Amino acid sequence: MYVAVMGYGTVGSGVVEVFNKNHESIVKRSTQSALEIRYILDLRDFPGDPNADKFIKDFNIILNDPEVKIVVETMGGLHPAFEFVSSLLKAGKSVVTSNKELVAAKGYELLKMAEENNVNFLFEASVGGGIPIIRPITQCLAANEIDEIAGILNGTTNFILTMMIEKQMSFEDALKLAQDNGYAEKDPTADIEGQDACRKICILASLCFGKHVYPDSVHTEGITKIALEDVAYVRNYGGVIKLLGRAKRLDNGKISAMVSPAVVMDGSQLASVRDVFNAILVRGDAIGDVVFYGKGAGKLPTASAVVADVIDCAKHVGRKKAFGWGPSEDDYVVDYKTLPTSLYIRASVADKAAALENVEAKFGKVRVLTRDNAPETEFAFVTGEDVEQTLCDKLTEIPGLTVLSSIRITDY
Amino acid sequence: MYVAVMGYGTVGSGVVEVFNKNHESIVKRSTQSALEIRYILDLRDFPGDPNADKFIKDFNIILNDPEVKIVVETMGGLHPAFEFVSSLLKAGKSVVTSNKELVAAKGYELLKMAEENNVNFLFEASVGGGIPIIRPITQCLAANEIDEIAGILNGTTNFILTMMIEKQMSFEDALKLAQDNGYAEKDPTADIEGQDACRKICILASLCFGKHVYPDSVHTEGITKIALEDVAYVRNYGGVIKLLGRAKRLDNGKISAMVSPAVVMDGSQLASVRDVFNAILVRGDAIGDVVFYGKGAGKLPTASAVVADVIDCAKHVGRKKAFGWGPSEDDYVVDYKTLPTSLYIRASVADKAAALENVEAKFGKVRVLTRDNAPETEFAFVTGEDVEQTLCDKLTEIPGLTVLSSIRITDY
Repeated sequence: MYVAVMGYGTVGSGVVEVFNKNHESIVKRSTQSALEIRYILDLRDFPGDPNADKFIKDFNIILNDPEVKIVVETMGGLHPAFEFVSSLLKAGKSVVTSNKELVAAKGYELLKMAEENNVNFLFEASVGGGIPIIRPITQCLAANEIDEIAGILNGTTNFILTMMIEKQMSFEDALKLAQDNGYAEKDPTADIEGQDACRKICILASLCFGKHVYPDSVHTEGITKIALEDVAYVRNYGGVIKLLGRAKRLDNGKISAMVSPAVVMDGSQLASVRDVFNAILVRGDAIGDVVFYGKGAGKLPTASAVVADVIDCAKHVGRKKAFGWGPSEDDYVVDYKTLPTSLYIRASVADKAAALENVEAKFGKVRVLTRDNAPETEFAFVTGEDVEQTLCDKLTEIPGLTVLSSIRITDY
Repeated sequence: MYVAVMGYGTVGSGVVEVFNKNHESIVKRSTQSALEIRYILDLRDFPGDPNADKFIKDFNIILNDPEVKIVVETMGGLHPAFEFVSSLLKAGKSVVTSNKELVAAKGYELLKMAEENNVNFLFEASVGGGIPIIRPITQCLAANEIDEIAGILNGTTNFILTMMIEKQMSFEDALKLAQDNGYAEKDPTADIEGQDACRKICILASLCFGKHVYPDSVHTEGITKIALEDVAYVRNYGGVIKLLGRAKRLDNGKISAMVSPAVVMDGSQLASVRDVFNAILVRGDAIGDVVFYGKGAGKLPTASAVVADVIDCAKHVGRKKAFGWGPSEDDYVVDYKTLPTSLYIRASVADKAAALENVEAKFGKVRVLTRDNAPETEFAFVTGEDVEQTLCDKLTEIPGLTVLSSIRITDY
């Protein structure tokens, strides 16, 4: 049985490397007598590459080779990945992808095509890099109703926040360091604005709750507005600021889903996740909290997840695995402002004592926070729990108080 | 398709509860049009139980019912569990068990019987309770060579150690509290002497490295000798004492495997695992470190893992999953004393300054540790890395020094 790899970038070349390195055990575990990479599709040239005999530039060679049963898509981006993958599934080939943008935008459509053609469309590597998460959710937790899922889903932003928390580095300096270390791209927008985490929570929420969750329905905030002042206040409160993607089943058949900076209290397994590591917490009705932790990116971890999916496809040729989700509906993801939360607030005020009095007149007792060297005009506190819109409305009604920073508190 | 449950204790009754509660989604996920519990085998009576019509006392009813295709074994103990499970596998029924004693002692034999009869023998719940670990190791990590595995595998001892670390409770008081809370049995031997953790690391090591690892080949130490003095010294060293089960692939085709108290440094994902929680770290060649965290015991978490296996059996009726391990060989697990480690040592000495001089004459520079209110006759330090036997020999050669406590340092 033959495999083709489309896209020979970091992940694609890692797939070929892992495949060659562990070939003997991969063949054994796939229960196929042979499993070989026949083609590598890439428009670029790779002179001197040991796999030179496998490179092709024409997608149709893969599409039209009946012996290629499994295709790995590691090109990234929506187009032409979507068109290629669609054609392959319709031609009766299973597809494995690490492309979270593709799965988040087109997952339902592609899963349906796979179903109709009795092939598999797998994407373990699209969330959490090498951390096994898609398969444990579908299989191991099959006996649970999953109530909630939350995760540190982006290694770049977690590295930046770790540097801010542990080294008091400014956001700009930490971003620069992440770029120098190769953790952040030259254009870091998709990471620091939360879009990457958004795609991943969409995939997880789709899987956990059964209907496709589209990225544009998920409220998404990045970490660019987090200041060292916030880090210090939250530290003194006994927590850390993390960029979380989270989603929750609501009583009315709908869900909540968002990406935003969030306060995670010390003692939580998510609080101790440092540097470029990722962690995903799944809360089930029978199982309680389960956390999956590991490197969320990187050539070999991600490649190993892709290869595991290839093995799974090889074991299931001619049989569609029971796996996937259904179509979505309007307003499936509710407006985040209608949900209860408590907030950490940092504000500029004319007079702290007067501010406290005004704040408590609106909110009742609040927890006032402190930090070293805070100016007299800075006031930070944590509200009790209420609907977010209500909290925001109250804040605007407090005279002489300008909110500089507002971060949701979590209970993970 | 019908299911039978053998043993209506904590886990068995939890299985029935989870099965009934989530029946609709279980049927859907099993891809069977129907999946029902037909029998519950238990010698005891359960007057007033809502499942009264299902109770039986004769094992042969299950064995001889051709419509029962899947049997859950939650009786515990080796006998008659082994005889029952053997008969069932030979009769062409798949078996799901939570019984770690059975799998650790007889796993290879039972897996072989399952293979020969084209049925499945699954045991996700035998390690880590509800934490998905067996299936991620076999499937998600299929593309990795696993080099090492280490875990906090016993919730009772982790609770006791947490109380000792955080509340300075003595071992005896913490054990009493664990018993009062229902975390420890009246006879806590299997937990506190490390036997429970030993069975679990045997199962994990068998799966990771491919050959059956028997409990009596694994050096096992419990936590009964850990003193609050050790907790304090290790705290000041920047670590915590945890009971770890661990196993490692060696270059010569053999493995190391042991259960013992170990120093885990702060910052490790294993260090922040508190109370009755478990965590398992898997180190693969491509994936790096991955950690699985959750409740390692308890009625519903364990039951949910059993039910997930039942669903998997239902999906694979008539097909043996590629899963399991081979027979063992003599000396497969090497003598732990031949392996390199560094040690935390607490000793009684006549004179600290003289002791330091003598110790450094043997070991070279060591890291001396301190604690509040240490008597003048107590001396604690951390050695450099060497073969454990060599370290122990050197210690006996130091005049006037009596080792009171010795704990291995880890790098997880």
